[in-house]
Amino acid sequence: MEFDLINCYFAPLGLSQSSEQAALDGTDIGIGDDGAVLSVPAGKQLVVVTDTLVSGVHFPENTCAYDVAWKALAVNLSDLAAMAATPFAYSLGLSLPTECATNQDWMADFALGFADLVASTGLSIALIGGDTTRSKVLTLTVSAKGWVDYGQAILRSGAQEGDYIVVSGVLGEGALGLQVALHQIPMGLSAQQKQAALDYLNRPQPQLLLGELLSGVAHSAIDISDGLLQDLGHILKSSNKKQRLLGETKVLGAHIELDRLPLSAGMQALFAENENWAWPLSGGDDYQLCFTISAEALAPLLAVAQQNTIPLSVIGQINDRGKIEASLRGQPFALDAMLAGFQHF
Amino acid sequence: MEFDLINCYFAPLGLSQSSEQAALDGTDIGIGDDGAVLSVPAGKQLVVVTDTLVSGVHFPENTCAYDVAWKALAVNLSDLAAMAATPFAYSLGLSLPTECATNQDWMADFALGFADLVASTGLSIALIGGDTTRSKVLTLTVSAKGWVDYGQAILRSGAQEGDYIVVSGVLGEGALGLQVALHQIPMGLSAQQKQAALDYLNRPQPQLLLGELLSGVAHSAIDISDGLLQDLGHILKSSNKKQRLLGETKVLGAHIELDRLPLSAGMQALFAENENWAWPLSGGDDYQLCFTISAEALAPLLAVAQQNTIPLSVIGQINDRGKIEASLRGQPFALDAMLAGFQHF
Repeated sequence: MEFDLINCYFAPLGLSQSSEQAALDGTDIGIGDDGAVLSVPAGKQLVVVTDTLVSGVHFPENTCAYDVAWKALAVNLSDLAAMAATPFAYSLGLSLPTECATNQDWMADFALGFADLVASTGLSIALIGGDTTRSKVLTLTVSAKGWVDYGQAILRSGAQEGDYIVVSGVLGEGALGLQVALHQIPMGLSAQQKQAALDYLNRPQPQLLLGELLSGVAHSAIDISDGLLQDLGHILKSSNKKQRLLGETKVLGAHIELDRLPLSAGMQALFAENENWAWPLSGGDDYQLCFTISAEALAPLLAVAQQNTIPLSVIGQINDRGKIEASLRGQPFALDAMLAGFQHF
Repeated sequence: MEFDLINCYFAPLGLSQSSEQAALDGTDIGIGDDGAVLSVPAGKQLVVVTDTLVSGVHFPENTCAYDVAWKALAVNLSDLAAMAATPFAYSLGLSLPTECATNQDWMADFALGFADLVASTGLSIALIGGDTTRSKVLTLTVSAKGWVDYGQAILRSGAQEGDYIVVSGVLGEGALGLQVALHQIPMGLSAQQKQAALDYLNRPQPQLLLGELLSGVAHSAIDISDGLLQDLGHILKSSNKKQRLLGETKVLGAHIELDRLPLSAGMQALFAENENWAWPLSGGDDYQLCFTISAEALAPLLAVAQQNTIPLSVIGQINDRGKIEASLRGQPFALDAMLAGFQHF
C-alpha cells in the first residue's frame, strides 16, 4: 500500500530524477532509497524545522485534504522564513486513516496542496522522503530543510534596546478564521470577510521573500504561530538570556501601541462592535513574521518592502523595562490577563 | 505545556550549548529557536531518513515509554547504517496522549530511551528540535540526519550479477518478539529465549559499525524492516531499474539457500517443531542489514567483521534469472506464496 501511495502521489513531488538515474549521474537522491542524499552548497549552513499537525487539534476535522497539506508545509516554511533560510526540501511523516488512504480524490487533493504551495513560492522545494502509516487520527509531521549563508540565520536572541518591533500582514486573522470554520461567528462579517479569514487560516502564506530581505538587516525574528504576545515574549526571553551571558544587567522589555496593530477588514468590522484585543494579541495561527530592527535600518527596509508589496507595520519598540507593556490611544493598556503564564523574561 | 516538556525532558538530549550561547560563539544551534542551524563538514553529503511509529500499529499499545523512544530512533539509525552514513542529529515530531504527557515517570523513561540508545552508539547524536502536540494516539515521527563522504552513500541500486548476498545478525526474531509481546507463543520457548526475542523487537541495535565497514566495499545495501524477501526485492527492483538505464537487457535475480539463514536459539527451538520459513523470510522488524558484495571483497570484509564481533551470514548470490529463488537442503523451495504481491523486479 505504502509503495503505491508513494509512486502515485508523492514521487511527482520529489526530485525530477529517479534515485537510480541520480546514482548514475552522481546527483542528489530523493525518494526511492533508505534515505535521501543531498549535496551541501559551499558556504551554507543547514536549517532544519519540524512541525506536527494533528486533526482536530491543529485543524478542524472537516478541513479538506488540500488545505491540510498546504498548512502542514506552510507552517514549516514560515519557520524557515523567520530564520532567513531558503527552503530546498521537506520530508513527511504521514499517519493516515484508511478512509483517506483509500480515497483517490483525497490523496490527489492532498498532493496538490503541497504542489501548489511550492509553486507559489517560485522555489524548488522537493519532497525527499518520509513514511506513510495507518492511524485512526490523521497526523502529519513535516520537517523542512533550508540553507542559509554561513552565520546569517536570524535568531530570536538578537533583539537590542531601541529596536523597532515590526510585524508583517495582519494579526488575529488565523484565530478569526478558526471561529468561522467552527461556525462560531454567525454575524457581523460579510461573506467575503469570512472567506478571507478562512483562507488565512487554511492556507498561510510563508513570508519567504520578507525573510530574505531581513537577512543581515533584522536583529531578531520569529514567526507568529502562538500569538503576538507569546512569540514576542520568546524573543525577549531569548535575547535576555543572551544579554545575561554577555554580563549585561539590564532586562529587555517591549512596548507596543495597540493602535498600530494591523487588522483585517473583517477584524475591523468586529472591532466596531467590540474591541477584543485578545484576537490580534493572543490569537494563534497567523504565520506572519515579528522582527526587531535598528532605527537606522528601518527606513530602507520599509522602502524595499513597499517595492515588493509586503505590508509591514511598526508596532512598538524594545526597551529596558523587562516586560511587555501596551498603550491604546495614548493610555496604558493592561495586558496582565493575556500575559498570564508565560511572562518570564 | 510544550515548553515545560522541552525544557525538562528534551533539552538535555540536545546540543550541550544553549541556542543563546551558540549565537555568541558562532556554533551550531539546536533546540531553542525557530529551527536548528547546523554546519556542514567539508566534503560531506547530508543523508536524511524519516520513520513514523504509531501505537498499536508499529508497537503494541502496552510497550513501555523507554522502548518506544529507543525503537523510534533506532529504526532511523538503521536506515542511516544501510547507507553507510554517520548519524549526528535527529528531530522529533511527537503526538502524545494526555496521560503520557502529564506522567513524569513516562516522560523521563521516554527521554532515557533516546539517551541510552545514543550512548550505546558511542557517537554524538543530538536532538535538534521538533514539535510536541496532543493526540489520542501516541505517534512519533523521527527524522535522523547523517553525513556521508561525498558520493559514498551505499544505495539499493548497485547490486551486480555474481555478488554475494550477506545479512547481519539473525532473521525473523523481530516477528517472533512481536508474537511473544502479544502472548501468542505460550509454549516451545524458554523464558530466556522469549526475553531475547522481546529485546530484539523493542530495542533494535542499528548496525552503524557494519555500515561504516561497508562504505566503499558493498555494492548495495538495505536494512531489513519489511522482511528479507521484500527488502531483497527492493534491492533487485532498484538495481534492475539502474541496469535498464544503462541499456542492459539481463534482469537480475537472487538465489538464497535457506539452510544458511541465521536463526536465533529461540527460532531454532521453534523450527525443531515446525519449519515455518515465513518467519525469517517475511517477518518484519529485524533491522539487520542485507547487502551485496563482490566475491573479491567478501573475504576481507568477513575477516574485519569477525574482528569486530559482527555476525554475518552469506545467504546466497545475485544471478541473472530475474526473480528470487530459494533452495533447502539442495532442493528447490517454492517461495511463490511469500513473494505474492511484490515480485516486480
